[in-house]
Amino acid sequence: MIVTVTPNPALDVTYAVDRVALGRSHRVREVREVAGGKGLNVAGVLTAMGREVMALGLVGAGGEAIAEDLAARGIRHSLGRVDGTVRRTVTVVSSGDGEATAFNEPGPRWTAQAADTLRALVTRTLGAVRPAVLVISGSVPPGMPVDGLSALVAIGRAHGCVVIVDAAREALAGVLGVGPDLVKPNHHELAEVVGTTDPVTGAARLRERGANQVVVSCGPRGLVLVDDGLAVRASLPDALRGNATGAGDAAVAALAAGLAEGRSGVQLLADAVAWSAASVLEPTAGIVDPAVVERLRATVVLTAEPATG
Amino acid sequence: MIVTVTPNPALDVTYAVDRVALGRSHRVREVREVAGGKGLNVAGVLTAMGREVMALGLVGAGGEAIAEDLAARGIRHSLGRVDGTVRRTVTVVSSGDGEATAFNEPGPRWTAQAADTLRALVTRTLGAVRPAVLVISGSVPPGMPVDGLSALVAIGRAHGCVVIVDAAREALAGVLGVGPDLVKPNHHELAEVVGTTDPVTGAARLRERGANQVVVSCGPRGLVLVDDGLAVRASLPDALRGNATGAGDAAVAALAAGLAEGRSGVQLLADAVAWSAASVLEPTAGIVDPAVVERLRATVVLTAEPATG
Repeated sequence: MIVTVTPNPALDVTYAVDRVALGRSHRVREVREVAGGKGLNVAGVLTAMGREVMALGLVGAGGEAIAEDLAARGIRHSLGRVDGTVRRTVTVVSSGDGEATAFNEPGPRWTAQAADTLRALVTRTLGAVRPAVLVISGSVPPGMPVDGLSALVAIGRAHGCVVIVDAAREALAGVLGVGPDLVKPNHHELAEVVGTTDPVTGAARLRERGANQVVVSCGPRGLVLVDDGLAVRASLPDALRGNATGAGDAAVAALAAGLAEGRSGVQLLADAVAWSAASVLEPTAGIVDPAVVERLRATVVLTAEPATG
Repeated sequence: MIVTVTPNPALDVTYAVDRVALGRSHRVREVREVAGGKGLNVAGVLTAMGREVMALGLVGAGGEAIAEDLAARGIRHSLGRVDGTVRRTVTVVSSGDGEATAFNEPGPRWTAQAADTLRALVTRTLGAVRPAVLVISGSVPPGMPVDGLSALVAIGRAHGCVVIVDAAREALAGVLGVGPDLVKPNHHELAEVVGTTDPVTGAARLRERGANQVVVSCGPRGLVLVDDGLAVRASLPDALRGNATGAGDAAVAALAAGLAEGRSGVQLLADAVAWSAASVLEPTAGIVDPAVVERLRATVVLTAEPATG
């Protein structure tokens, strides 16, 4: 069993319009709404890959639409409530050229009570379902306490979970001190925290600051895993064209499944590349086709080298 | 007392962003939500002008945010429920140049039951509050029966109300046969239904098809009223710069107040120009400042001529 925590879930709304012209009014021809937020995407991919998973998070008013979408896709979840309105992301897609322009709301501002509610939800769930892996994933809501993610990592450790954190900026920097088992920044996020885009050098710095394993996602150039004395690089022979949104979440899903099932190193990373690439071929985040994962898995190119640090 | 009916209310959402670039993702810095929809704007203006008004409409899930905004602004209302999610309009305003780009959802698709619900709500309210004027205003929801507005006009007539309709395209064309007391197309809407933008000629055609009085709004060029034998033109000496959204609704509010209070012709139209212009000076639709209305009212320029038809 894997549990994912999404502190700041979203309702991902897509508007189909004929053509976008700045400064004008547009009639929206079609509105689609799906559950969004990185931890929910991770849970979606794990569900699609036949793994047992439970998604946790806090949503504002209107969050029923998120719960309905998760239920329709067979994704087990337990969502708590936070004051304010559910966070939305609005992506406007022009039917002419398919160009997508996104507007991402910050989400409801947390009070101290929201942090208490999420900690209680996570504690209760970990006690009940005893997962092997806890994934904490996604953007941090406005007003979340600075130790908010660290407190969740500590709860996971206290319940014997392997803890994966996918966060950025201050949230990533702040969680390193409590020693998460694996962090997965992308190369931009890596540079923001340690000042270098080189994945091996940067990962070593994150490990010095407390992370155990580090996986850096480098877009079409694949993934780099750094742990004790080993740096593994994995990629596909050719870059895929498609929808990169959610590719990182699919990688995290594979890492969670691999750690829950005892894989490490080369095996772990090759799966993550295959799941991530399969997600690129889907029109929306949080979904993969297991047959595509299997086909891509056979093509993954791997190199391993000694790592310092 | 005046009752307004909004078949398709909206939650008007404004996103503040730094600068909009098509094809990119944007962090929304601030989200504002206010009640929208033409009949709700009419009720807002009437409330601001100290008139007794009750706003009716049907909203989907999430419509509580509309009710909360109306309550906060002191606007009496009674909103029924329709299946689906509340209609939203999203306006993205770039903080650099203030450019506003709007995306308007169509709203939840009506079933036959929704039409029944709105008719019952209107019948119950007219019986209870006995208004002098009924205003039916705004866009028509997807799936509303073709006789939907005509049925509401008939309910108003049966309760002895003067009935004003502000609608466009098929909805305006379809309602003429039941003889509304006043219709208020703008000059674009006029052209869509009768094929001419000339307000006097076009209004005469709407009267031939069943409307009693016709007021055509012509943007900064003011308003034209046509009824038995008389065409009145009213405008300000100089065009105002500001927010034209809701200017037509403020004109309808003045027409409703004037008909409820026994004004006609020149008096009626001069008020409508003043209320409409005062609305242009407010940053959001559905609000006017009574002191500004009074000041502008004194400057309105009027001409009257005999009209044929």
